[in-house]
Amino acid sequence: MERILEIKGHIIRDDILKKIDTSVEQYHGKYKVLELIVGDRVDDESTAKISIDVPEGKDEWIYNELLNLGCTIPKMNEEATIKYSDKNKTVPDDFYSTTNHPTFIYSQGKWIRVQHQRMDACIIKRGEEFHCVKLRDIKKGDAIVCGHAGIRIEAPQTPESNDFAFMVNDVSSERRVQIGVQRLAEEMKEIKAKKGKIVVVAGPVVIHTGGIDSLCNMIRGGFVHCLLSGNALAVHDTERSLYGTSLGIDLETGTAIQGGHKNHMRAINTINRSGSIRQAVEDGTLTSGIMYECVKNDVSFVLAGSIRDDGPLPDTIMDLIVAQEKYAEAVADADLVIMLSTMLHAIGTGNMLPSWVKTVCVDINPAVVAKLVDRGSAQTQGLVTDVGLFLSMLDQKLQ
Amino acid sequence: MERILEIKGHIIRDDILKKIDTSVEQYHGKYKVLELIVGDRVDDESTAKISIDVPEGKDEWIYNELLNLGCTIPKMNEEATIKYSDKNKTVPDDFYSTTNHPTFIYSQGKWIRVQHQRMDACIIKRGEEFHCVKLRDIKKGDAIVCGHAGIRIEAPQTPESNDFAFMVNDVSSERRVQIGVQRLAEEMKEIKAKKGKIVVVAGPVVIHTGGIDSLCNMIRGGFVHCLLSGNALAVHDTERSLYGTSLGIDLETGTAIQGGHKNHMRAINTINRSGSIRQAVEDGTLTSGIMYECVKNDVSFVLAGSIRDDGPLPDTIMDLIVAQEKYAEAVADADLVIMLSTMLHAIGTGNMLPSWVKTVCVDINPAVVAKLVDRGSAQTQGLVTDVGLFLSMLDQKLQ
Amino acid sequence: MERILEIKGHIIRDDILKKIDTSVEQYHGKYKVLELIVGDRVDDESTAKISIDVPEGKDEWIYNELLNLGCTIPKMNEEATIKYSDKNKTVPDDFYSTTNHPTFIYSQGKWIRVQHQRMDACIIKRGEEFHCVKLRDIKKGDAIVCGHAGIRIEAPQTPESNDFAFMVNDVSSERRVQIGVQRLAEEMKEIKAKKGKIVVVAGPVVIHTGGIDSLCNMIRGGFVHCLLSGNALAVHDTERSLYGTSLGIDLETGTAIQGGHKNHMRAINTINRSGSIRQAVEDGTLTSGIMYECVKNDVSFVLAGSIRDDGPLPDTIMDLIVAQEKYAEAVADADLVIMLSTMLHAIGTGNMLPSWVKTVCVDINPAVVAKLVDRGSAQTQGLVTDVGLFLSMLDQKLQ
Amino acid sequence: MERILEIKGHIIRDDILKKIDTSVEQYHGKYKVLELIVGDRVDDESTAKISIDVPEGKDEWIYNELLNLGCTIPKMNEEATIKYSDKNKTVPDDFYSTTNHPTFIYSQGKWIRVQHQRMDACIIKRGEEFHCVKLRDIKKGDAIVCGHAGIRIEAPQTPESNDFAFMVNDVSSERRVQIGVQRLAEEMKEIKAKKGKIVVVAGPVVIHTGGIDSLCNMIRGGFVHCLLSGNALAVHDTERSLYGTSLGIDLETGTAIQGGHKNHMRAINTINRSGSIRQAVEDGTLTSGIMYECVKNDVSFVLAGSIRDDGPLPDTIMDLIVAQEKYAEAVADADLVIMLSTMLHAIGTGNMLPSWVKTVCVDINPAVVAKLVDRGSAQTQGLVTDVGLFLSMLDQKLQ
Repeated sequence: MERILEIKGHIIRDDILKKIDTSVEQYHGKYKVLELIVGDRVDDESTAKISIDVPEGKDEWIYNELLNLGCTIPKMNEEATIKYSDKNKTVPDDFYSTTNHPTFIYSQGKWIRVQHQRMDACIIKRGEEFHCVKLRDIKKGDAIVCGHAGIRIEAPQTPESNDFAFMVNDVSSERRVQIGVQRLAEEMKEIKAKKGKIVVVAGPVVIHTGGIDSLCNMIRGGFVHCLLSGNALAVHDTERSLYGTSLGIDLETGTAIQGGHKNHMRAINTINRSGSIRQAVEDGTLTSGIMYECVKNDVSFVLAGSIRDDGPLPDTIMDLIVAQEKYAEAVADADLVIMLSTMLHAIGTGNMLPSWVKTVCVDINPAVVAKLVDRGSAQTQGLVTDVGLFLSMLDQKLQ
Repeated sequence: MERILEIKGHIIRDDILKKIDTSVEQYHGKYKVLELIVGDRVDDESTAKISIDVPEGKDEWIYNELLNLGCTIPKMNEEATIKYSDKNKTVPDDFYSTTNHPTFIYSQGKWIRVQHQRMDACIIKRGEEFHCVKLRDIKKGDAIVCGHAGIRIEAPQTPESNDFAFMVNDVSSERRVQIGVQRLAEEMKEIKAKKGKIVVVAGPVVIHTGGIDSLCNMIRGGFVHCLLSGNALAVHDTERSLYGTSLGIDLETGTAIQGGHKNHMRAINTINRSGSIRQAVEDGTLTSGIMYECVKNDVSFVLAGSIRDDGPLPDTIMDLIVAQEKYAEAVADADLVIMLSTMLHAIGTGNMLPSWVKTVCVDINPAVVAKLVDRGSAQTQGLVTDVGLFLSMLDQKLQ
Repeated sequence: MERILEIKGHIIRDDILKKIDTSVEQYHGKYKVLELIVGDRVDDESTAKISIDVPEGKDEWIYNELLNLGCTIPKMNEEATIKYSDKNKTVPDDFYSTTNHPTFIYSQGKWIRVQHQRMDACIIKRGEEFHCVKLRDIKKGDAIVCGHAGIRIEAPQTPESNDFAFMVNDVSSERRVQIGVQRLAEEMKEIKAKKGKIVVVAGPVVIHTGGIDSLCNMIRGGFVHCLLSGNALAVHDTERSLYGTSLGIDLETGTAIQGGHKNHMRAINTINRSGSIRQAVEDGTLTSGIMYECVKNDVSFVLAGSIRDDGPLPDTIMDLIVAQEKYAEAVADADLVIMLSTMLHAIGTGNMLPSWVKTVCVDINPAVVAKLVDRGSAQTQGLVTDVGLFLSMLDQKLQ
Repeated sequence: MERILEIKGHIIRDDILKKIDTSVEQYHGKYKVLELIVGDRVDDESTAKISIDVPEGKDEWIYNELLNLGCTIPKMNEEATIKYSDKNKTVPDDFYSTTNHPTFIYSQGKWIRVQHQRMDACIIKRGEEFHCVKLRDIKKGDAIVCGHAGIRIEAPQTPESNDFAFMVNDVSSERRVQIGVQRLAEEMKEIKAKKGKIVVVAGPVVIHTGGIDSLCNMIRGGFVHCLLSGNALAVHDTERSLYGTSLGIDLETGTAIQGGHKNHMRAINTINRSGSIRQAVEDGTLTSGIMYECVKNDVSFVLAGSIRDDGPLPDTIMDLIVAQEKYAEAVADADLVIMLSTMLHAIGTGNMLPSWVKTVCVDINPAVVAKLVDRGSAQTQGLVTDVGLFLSMLDQKLQ
């Protein structure tokens, strides 16, 4: 069935026409650009009139795609469709699955911004409000936004037009990292100055590569407001503080200590005896390191458990539903998220982040950054480099 | 203090003298080989008499190391030291931390084999028996094996003298994978013939690289007896079965489907409606794929949750304490564990495996195999290759 | 200075407006889209009128860029500017540096296609003809095309609209390789049927990973018409044929042969004694392997030397000027180039290839494919996989 | 045939018994350790008497292996066997193929040290002297050392007993790089103090990652005495100096310059006009950068050509026989070789290095270091890190 679509949005900047072309091809349909009125510049909005003829039922996919690209379809400025869940944790088949971009629902004649924005969620109506809710939290009877009418998304800034961008187009180890470090340090100073929130997501490689002292300096300097990690970082940080090793490797000399493999179990045993990391700090057992500085400087931390954890430490949350919720709370009002050498926790955090939170991912493996961007966290700036040297240089620039 | 140590074991084969040398150097001690009587061949046991002079308290480390290498120290054929835990989840500081090798405790005049062998555990005495118990499961009052007296370990076979070995010394992508596939297929046929147990640990890359059909064939063929994985494999397998895509990529053409990103959420919604994977198979919702074949062929599966899970599916265990226990049960009596493209679950499983369970780790990233071996699962045979093509070739060889 | 630019080309498909935007921004200029008349579909040509105001001298860069994108600038349908070299190996500063796309020069009232198209070359006029010539081959007095007037480029097909494309947008190991193998096999059969030319560029990893038999089958089957490689492939192929090893590793068992490291020197010594690879085949010294099959099946080969070569074999060309020329001849009329696990020779060959030659690059390291695409060989289809298994599967599909 | 072998050497330290075991197994022979008299410590020499029974002709392999491990076999303290080449570039089949360790030949009653030690060479007798000569330089009639009699090798120091060692056993990105940088800086200061020679082998990634300024500082500071590289480093260094870009990427902002891809060809054109890099410095064309500092500080450089070179620059040696010889001269008397992000030139240089020259290889890709070690340059210390940040930190430590 042929329909005339009028769209308004960043048609040139966001490659809307090319995306329509691909969509229509996929469904073996036809289209024709009837009219295109461009703004003066690429960043301006344009309007287009396009005739689209796709098989019945497939046009919905295309509208959805256009919505997700930030277009408005004038004829669709109608009330959003609400259907009701008939079973806990389930929604109607045509539920609208969210992106991580700012989203608005047309309801009772006005556009209302959706709260708790995150990707891969459902939108439910609660009174006058609309909220992103995860599928697992849907209750029977919840009012679910379905279809594509009455939904509008604010197109994300492309990295090219973003002051903060320091790595355009690609993920490569053959780039000058100093530029990225410099811009990140400036960003962090600005956020600190205006009392914003910086969240660090870190893996144990931070310890193994010698980044403890730099990260401790950053915590003491007020540049870290929340630490998200897993069991291993805290175990090896404690191991270093108590015995000087990380996974049995002496961090001063870089050599393996005979029998040192046992040290991480001794560290867990010691914290267990105190009862928790905080108590180990308070009773004088733990006197240095990243976790120590977090406790001393009132930096909150969340340690999420995983299938490979030894111990775990009493502070590690092994119920992942709870851990996901605590992570989500931690990043909800973040201004900047810095991900250091941890694919697992980085993707976990990336899934929860709205697209307007600046995100930097540092890893020596280009595949980790590429994967994060692939999964929708396109606002991520990647730095492919050695995380130990990176932290050392970032710490220098912050002083 | 100088002591004369008499040791008996695979002194040549397992580099015992070199390891003593390193240990003693580390503690700035002295040693002298007084006598060395070698067997006829490298694989025979030898005996040595060595004078060692290390600072007070450090000799314990060296004895521990020697024990873990499978040496017996004649003077130490004395009763093992037992101390008691004075608080849940804690043990005395000199607790013996286990390896994944067969371990024996000298108690009331005889050597008793430790049960539930795994690495990084404590040994507790229960009646006449000795068990590996994880630190977190220690209760106040438990009888803990401490120190180094009365402990003996059976040295593991070195890969060189192992028929099954197909990748000696190194982890490299520049090796002929066909040899490894051939030997693995033979091993699997033998295990099947004698009604043994093969456990497959798999990540979602198995789906993305087109391994579904091969793995389904292997399940139907009776070559898989348990599947350990996470939420993502089951989600993308279900997504493929219901919509033909995995993370929105059409698996027949390799191209991205517009709007296809939503498919994994639709898949979760659909399984939620049925109630579980098994119920989805039984009510006719799920009619193909890896999870379907597991249900139809009575292959048990355990899906362990993680911080990055969407959904999760009703079958995914988000309490990691429970998930670790179910994993551990699954591998307890395994004859062969095959790890396919999943660092997280492979290391998790590796931590639980006794050293006598044959283990194969397949990944396109050499760092994953190297890491698994580093962490103590030295029995692991690594294959650095494309997991999709690997499964296709393994399936051919099994037919 | 403000100028009105009228352009015609694939303005939508090739993101011309966005590229103008970026260019103008870079020179702190201004622009305004005065008019844009789009074709019916994305693949149709569009015309635009744009006002551009950039600092003196910078507009040339933008014109060049537009030319390279396949736009024509109507006012510029004027004679190309010719200047003369005043020294061997040098050209005027404003020389036109070529892309690898079909290029036409406006001369004496008509558009003439440039011959010997390759990237990073100069264009010289010889009589009525225009040729790509490498900087090093420029002679004093040569007539060089300069500036941007009278130059037109045919925009390359984007991979999306290319039947042969099997890997769109990204380079990842998490893709289904079988699809790519299937399409490549079909392409090869078609080329063979119409007596086209397939060039294989291969590194020694083909030997180490067990690809010899498959590649030999392909040569005997008539699917390889030229082999480009270096010294190492031929050395290790010969080593395998004579002693069963490659770099001392037994290819049947995968284990290192004691003293086997010497085998590659013995192989070179043996070929030296015969005088060349061809003579070694003819005198019965060499009786199997890739080089043997090349000689027996009249497949030409070029072995280019490198700084790391042992020997080299008498057939290895150590004068790289000569080697580059022989490579360039070999690919000049190729229909398909398959690059197997060799960054060095793949980039060397990529530099010489016009953009209309289909190119496939197979490597287990995603960085190699990414680098090839980065350097301008954007027509390259990448497959991130194990080259030994890849060849085995390709050989199966070709039979 | 059974023979009694008496060997003397670092039998324990260098795993001689295990290596004999492997060798004998391979030839389906038998052996028995009749006697083993160990030194007091692992580093002391031991003596052994071993009965070996292997098939005729295979014992030579084992003797060769033992020789290469630094053992002396008393009965073999006889004159070395000399045979004569009967054709240029060929030697008798049983020629002795060298290692990179110090080698001695027994001739006329005394041990004479071989000159120009390098791996994979032949040894020829010239008057009273013995020289390593590459196969390609053998002339008809040359006197070649063959067999295994009268050859002795000084076992290399194992890394464990080496002060300079900072990365034992493995190649991993999960290590603390600062320790390695610190030790390297100390080593460089010592070498400079005693007027030794430091050779830097560098790839173009040094430029792309922003290492120019640090390396320039090191050259001016007297820490670099020779630079070995290829065409690309010099091209991109010149490009940066003349236009601020490297492969078209602005090194100050990290963004791609439109049309910037042409810059490397313009750089070559400019140097061609001057005639050479040195002349470009002298005529004031080139006023900064690595090549500029080399010229100004009398640091010699060798640029070896490759199949992928554009241009090349007039200074690039495209005859690889000449380039290999100039490289070999440059490293002959080196005290330290630092390899920076270039697999090609690093392996090329590694092949030429005697085992007593300290070598450091820095690369973000662990496979590069692993490959270098695999190929026999086992003295190589590897650092898996970002080369730009590495140089920045090394420069700081040197000041």
